[in-house]
Amino acid sequence: MIKDPKQTAILSKIHKPGDVRALEGDQIDILAQELRDIIISQVSAHGGHLAPSLGVIELTLALFRSFDLERDKLVWDVGHQAYAHKLLTGRADEFHTLRQKGGLSGFPRMAESHYDHFGVGHSSTSISAALGMAMARDLKGEDHEVVAVIGDGSLTAGLAFEGLNQAGDLGSKMVVVLNDNEMSISKNVGALSQFLSRKMTTPFLQRLKSDVEGLLATIPKIGDDLAGYAKRYGDSVKSFFTPGILFEAFHFTYVGPIDGHDTATLVKVFEEVKKLDKPVLVHVMTKKGKGYEPAESDPSHYHGVGEFIPETGLARKFSGSALQSYTAVFGDTLCSLASRDDRIIAITAAMPEGTGTECFRKNHPERFVDVGICEQHAVTFAAGLATEGYKPAVAIYSTFMQRAYDQIVHDVCLQNLNVNFFLDRGGLVGEDGATHHGAFDMSYLRHIPNLVVMAPKDEAELARMMATAFAHEGPCAVRYPRGTGVGAKVSANPKTIAVGRGELMRDGEDAAVIAIGSRVYPAVEAAMELVEDGLHVAVFNARFVKPLPEEQLLELAARFDRIVLVEENSLAGGFSSAVLELFTERGVMDGKRLKRLGIPDEFVEHGSQKELRRMLGIDKDGIKQALRTLCG
Amino acid sequence: MIKDPKQTAILSKIHKPGDVRALEGDQIDILAQELRDIIISQVSAHGGHLAPSLGVIELTLALFRSFDLERDKLVWDVGHQAYAHKLLTGRADEFHTLRQKGGLSGFPRMAESHYDHFGVGHSSTSISAALGMAMARDLKGEDHEVVAVIGDGSLTAGLAFEGLNQAGDLGSKMVVVLNDNEMSISKNVGALSQFLSRKMTTPFLQRLKSDVEGLLATIPKIGDDLAGYAKRYGDSVKSFFTPGILFEAFHFTYVGPIDGHDTATLVKVFEEVKKLDKPVLVHVMTKKGKGYEPAESDPSHYHGVGEFIPETGLARKFSGSALQSYTAVFGDTLCSLASRDDRIIAITAAMPEGTGTECFRKNHPERFVDVGICEQHAVTFAAGLATEGYKPAVAIYSTFMQRAYDQIVHDVCLQNLNVNFFLDRGGLVGEDGATHHGAFDMSYLRHIPNLVVMAPKDEAELARMMATAFAHEGPCAVRYPRGTGVGAKVSANPKTIAVGRGELMRDGEDAAVIAIGSRVYPAVEAAMELVEDGLHVAVFNARFVKPLPEEQLLELAARFDRIVLVEENSLAGGFSSAVLELFTERGVMDGKRLKRLGIPDEFVEHGSQKELRRMLGIDKDGIKQALRTLCG
Repeated sequence: MIKDPKQTAILSKIHKPGDVRALEGDQIDILAQELRDIIISQVSAHGGHLAPSLGVIELTLALFRSFDLERDKLVWDVGHQAYAHKLLTGRADEFHTLRQKGGLSGFPRMAESHYDHFGVGHSSTSISAALGMAMARDLKGEDHEVVAVIGDGSLTAGLAFEGLNQAGDLGSKMVVVLNDNEMSISKNVGALSQFLSRKMTTPFLQRLKSDVEGLLATIPKIGDDLAGYAKRYGDSVKSFFTPGILFEAFHFTYVGPIDGHDTATLVKVFEEVKKLDKPVLVHVMTKKGKGYEPAESDPSHYHGVGEFIPETGLARKFSGSALQSYTAVFGDTLCSLASRDDRIIAITAAMPEGTGTECFRKNHPERFVDVGICEQHAVTFAAGLATEGYKPAVAIYSTFMQRAYDQIVHDVCLQNLNVNFFLDRGGLVGEDGATHHGAFDMSYLRHIPNLVVMAPKDEAELARMMATAFAHEGPCAVRYPRGTGVGAKVSANPKTIAVGRGELMRDGEDAAVIAIGSRVYPAVEAAMELVEDGLHVAVFNARFVKPLPEEQLLELAARFDRIVLVEENSLAGGFSSAVLELFTERGVMDGKRLKRLGIPDEFVEHGSQKELRRMLGIDKDGIKQALRTLCG
Repeated sequence: MIKDPKQTAILSKIHKPGDVRALEGDQIDILAQELRDIIISQVSAHGGHLAPSLGVIELTLALFRSFDLERDKLVWDVGHQAYAHKLLTGRADEFHTLRQKGGLSGFPRMAESHYDHFGVGHSSTSISAALGMAMARDLKGEDHEVVAVIGDGSLTAGLAFEGLNQAGDLGSKMVVVLNDNEMSISKNVGALSQFLSRKMTTPFLQRLKSDVEGLLATIPKIGDDLAGYAKRYGDSVKSFFTPGILFEAFHFTYVGPIDGHDTATLVKVFEEVKKLDKPVLVHVMTKKGKGYEPAESDPSHYHGVGEFIPETGLARKFSGSALQSYTAVFGDTLCSLASRDDRIIAITAAMPEGTGTECFRKNHPERFVDVGICEQHAVTFAAGLATEGYKPAVAIYSTFMQRAYDQIVHDVCLQNLNVNFFLDRGGLVGEDGATHHGAFDMSYLRHIPNLVVMAPKDEAELARMMATAFAHEGPCAVRYPRGTGVGAKVSANPKTIAVGRGELMRDGEDAAVIAIGSRVYPAVEAAMELVEDGLHVAVFNARFVKPLPEEQLLELAARFDRIVLVEENSLAGGFSSAVLELFTERGVMDGKRLKRLGIPDEFVEHGSQKELRRMLGIDKDGIKQALRTLCG
């Protein structure tokens, strides 16, 4: 049972951020515990982002006490840590609707609350957005504060670096809170993360002093024993580094590190920081999952979770299906393909678990690379590997691959390199909502020359498409949905598929459905059920968005005048749009009654996948309805 | 007259990189002068990237002497500085064909030479690609060198930072040469660029020592006078920074700065660097335009130039046309619109001249922002400004806007913010070729909900579309071609256009052309000339890729069965694809004979815009031909 905010002693009296400022004595600590209890109870019942939100409860309270959200601006990076923020900004009574259709979003949304100053979901946007707000404030001659809260994981993305670099240059007053939990979703990677762990202490400074003295004695002349100098210099200078030095290099005043679970100290620091009229970085140390033992000990697992038993942290068991997820099939297949082909390299952008690559990491560690939250670099790095004969597999969710669009075009496809892209979460992702749907990949990929774009109807076909991608000369992309497959038996040694060939799933006489990816089986079910109505509908699994199975599609066009096209992608420029281009080019549109089903030209909000597919008319019933209308 | 490499004393004997290693005595200096002369002579006759290539002649020679390009890998960032590289790798005899159709590319291309180890054009990819090559080498157990050469401008892009961060983490042996000319295309911006100018010297180290002593005396306790400490700390610690410290923070061994025009010293340094088995950054100082006085004194202007008189550096005067470029019209109009609306802010990504924003910068400096080569940040920063009521104009070339695709989707359009995008160089750019054509923007923009996408037929319509964008609530994109307009009179106070309305340019009876952007006037000319053949062709200027002028298009469909659609964009998912979607949705395809003209599904190489448009059949004659075939 979800804890009711109305039953709390303190939270029930918080209706707006200002109410947090009015609290006294131990009320803040009680409130922190209430927030924690409600968040654990809510997420255990409906799933959500647990560990990130638990880690920033004290930080959120301190920010609400030090800043005035009626005038100051607060930008949460990614936003999966903003549950306490939501509970404290007049949304406690609706919190039980979190991530459900028509309910609160799992992320800050400007349309949801005027205390959500910037909508987020993808990482590393907060510094840039906050800097825009700071410049706006300066232009208007106003004097409110602007605060960005960014995790150390998000800081590895190039976008964050670009924001820091300009912020330091402009010199506008702003506060960047570095929420350092030494993790992104998984353990952090990159030179930067090691460096962040160094702290400024007296012994550190004493060592620094003696190192400088040593260096003073050995300034080299270029040319004489440079290698020796480089080593001495390197050994000495390395000990100079503190996080402070890095951020000061970007013209930020650095303050920290501060205990992120000590609200009183945080408030004191923020009050001092507000006096500074320049960019300030406050380095705050937090523990992901803080206050909930299972999440503290396994924060990766509890980053985002499904329903669990709060007392134990164990996932609720569901009776029934033991279907494998597409993610698991991808990971296992990649691992076994790599055992037979040592040119395969797995690349993930900070999501080794999320993309299912644990098996690969364990069995082929030398060929496994986690680049951090760096989708752009992941793709160009893969291109470099491919020039040397390797076959990198870049595994990035559809929505995050958007960040590497230029690198796919310019570094991979233009050079026709053997880089393969695996886009998990293609189509509607459900509860994560508008920022996370993979609604556009077919549209943003299919116009790129040289690229093969596939989408499997089930998990067995995913494995075959993976084998196809590695066998094909040139770049390939495979996009597959979030969730479980249909129970199709996955071969341990999957056969390849002919590029540009689909398959007729069932034949018919009255109409045809041309479907792709996750929509193939619903189309088959729709066709099966329509037999009762006397309608005999053929169903074709196109498999390829590019190159289209032209010959087969033209055969279908020759046989059928009534055709439903269905995809789980934007109708604008997606799969069915490609079919229209083909049919027009070949002059076979005369007398055709075509109906295209897919994602309309709008951002789709959150809800379960089932609800959303039904709403958009792309589930079995929607396809049936379209066929009935077409044949009516 | 272009200098003939065959007539040179040294270069004529260089057929492969190894030949450079064999040179002795003053032959290297003579060769440097020969390279310089040929590059100046070639670019003066045909245009090209002059200043970047002149700046790295000695660096190129040193790299060729120290590294063995038969086995070592060399990745030039951007690649506009690789003319000497081309001349030294067996391409001197073809150098006169540079950037011309069928001739050498202006950038390194793997398909052009096996000494071009990675194809480039967009900035900041070199570290990532080189790191991929380094990992491949390590996996294979080979021991060759991998070198990336990156400018300080390119280093501001997030992608380069992502590459550095992982390179330091992996620790693979690689050399990054930082070619520091204190410029990108224009003067560099960002905190980082100021920081790079600090050099490690004895006085610097002495000051550092005393600063550390000072700090040792004042280590604060958190909470007591933090602001005072922050200031003291900031003042002291700032003087610590050298470029070395930054790169050492990323686990690179830093060597430098080195005079980039002293070949002998560079070779000595590279020989020492080769002994180190880890990532090394060699900081080289060069002068853009080196050795050609006009380019040295105005390197921005001579970054990329048209034909000029080598003796004076003055542009060759062409008789005839005084037509304004689209770039100039954009810049002047933005400047004057901003005079009437103080919410307009101009944002450029390191190309204030290239995007025509000089007038704006001069007249509204407080509202002009150059973010550096940071397209992603430019867009999210603009989103932040828009949340505060401003109307940012993000001016980025079509091909470079590809890098901000996710930010356009996630930060701007999802939140329906008033950010306007101005994409110069939409369509075929000509001599810069495959990496630079704006071939995809209509396809990658039109599926994004909430976005309005326009393309003007001429410079006057560009101005009106700009006014429309700023008047419209929500995000807009305007894409326009490289080159001059048609001489249309541009209003100083341009009127807005109704969103989603096109215009009938001329009426007809036999067929219609639906054209957009740069293809409208060629369509009109084609229609005019076909009158002689007895064909009366209507021409419709669609103006909007999104929302389509639906009502007008359906009227045309009702009147005409023969329709040619023409755009200067990929046929896959572009403008005409949207029209097909509309016509199918409304069931008006019966009996239609449609012909779509545009860029086919392949990367288009370099050549003049005129040649390329002719080749692809999208010029006046191509449109005429399509109409004749359709009506034949």
